[in-house]
Amino acid sequence: MEEKLYEEKISSKKIFKGEILSLYFDKVKLPNGKTATREKVEHPGAVAVVPINKKRQVILIKQYRYPVEKDLIEIPAGKLDRSEPPLECAKRELKEEAGISGKNFDLLATIYTSPGFSNELMYIYLVTDFLEEENNPDHDEFLQILKIDLNECIKMIEEGAICDAKSIIGILMAKDHLSKNTR
Amino acid sequence: MEEKLYEEKISSKKIFKGEILSLYFDKVKLPNGKTATREKVEHPGAVAVVPINKKRQVILIKQYRYPVEKDLIEIPAGKLDRSEPPLECAKRELKEEAGISGKNFDLLATIYTSPGFSNELMYIYLVTDFLEEENNPDHDEFLQILKIDLNECIKMIEEGAICDAKSIIGILMAKDHLSKNTR
Repeated sequence: MEEKLYEEKISSKKIFKGEILSLYFDKVKLPNGKTATREKVEHPGAVAVVPINKKRQVILIKQYRYPVEKDLIEIPAGKLDRSEPPLECAKRELKEEAGISGKNFDLLATIYTSPGFSNELMYIYLVTDFLEEENNPDHDEFLQILKIDLNECIKMIEEGAICDAKSIIGILMAKDHLSKNTR
Repeated sequence: MEEKLYEEKISSKKIFKGEILSLYFDKVKLPNGKTATREKVEHPGAVAVVPINKKRQVILIKQYRYPVEKDLIEIPAGKLDRSEPPLECAKRELKEEAGISGKNFDLLATIYTSPGFSNELMYIYLVTDFLEEENNPDHDEFLQILKIDLNECIKMIEEGAICDAKSIIGILMAKDHLSKNTR
């Protein structure tokens, strides 16, 4: 049935190439032969990490998110550098943002954040085996580090205090993962 | 502490205005007084609905997603029309995409899909009280309708067969919501 859904690219126009995003305005042929336009954001991909310590606290990052004009509470995350393996990126971002050197990373999920308009692919890891070092995040990062009990994080998701997609997925899947592995 | 994280807009340049997205290239003042650039995608916002029938099957949509160049399995969803209330949009999209007239919608979550570069806000509803009508989706929509047991959906999330962020959040939160309300 693949053929029935497929949209064929007819033409592609690069509108913008920034440091992070590229924007394309494409024309496609629909399954019924008609044409349509597609606005597509190209993104390098990203990683996110759910760090949970031995006290079952999640290490979270509070930072200002310019596009949504507010502070958000999120799990540590960052964009992939050019051709950087996701696991290396996860280790780097965890160190830069939260000052944590993680060892054993479990891949919880690989998700598309907004497949209607963007190709951003996000790798979400769980790390439980780490030493919490002195917080010494990267100097270019403006953020606060929070430690919040996993059950409290679940409540914050239900109440909307954690409302970032990757963070919700990471925390909910980490909880399920941990409850399975300690059954 | 809000002041410490806030980024002040210095200038804003509209790069593109499409049917769905607008792209801005802005300059901001960081908390330390230095400047930086921000690439921001403006999105009208969207809704998604988790329809679960009396047999605990989730009604899902399989469709080609041009930006990621593959078919994805997702919960029914769509963009907000100009100034459309989210609940009205949820009813409309559920009818158009899945041929379902839902009545009682529970708001499960309101999420930012990609707050690092986009302001897209997504309202995710649960609907359990509906009649499954003859499937007669909108003629412009190229999609397949699937009915998959809720527990099987959870397995598909763990295995990566469902990898769309809003769908993962909707299904996981619907499961928790239902298990609480039937305890």
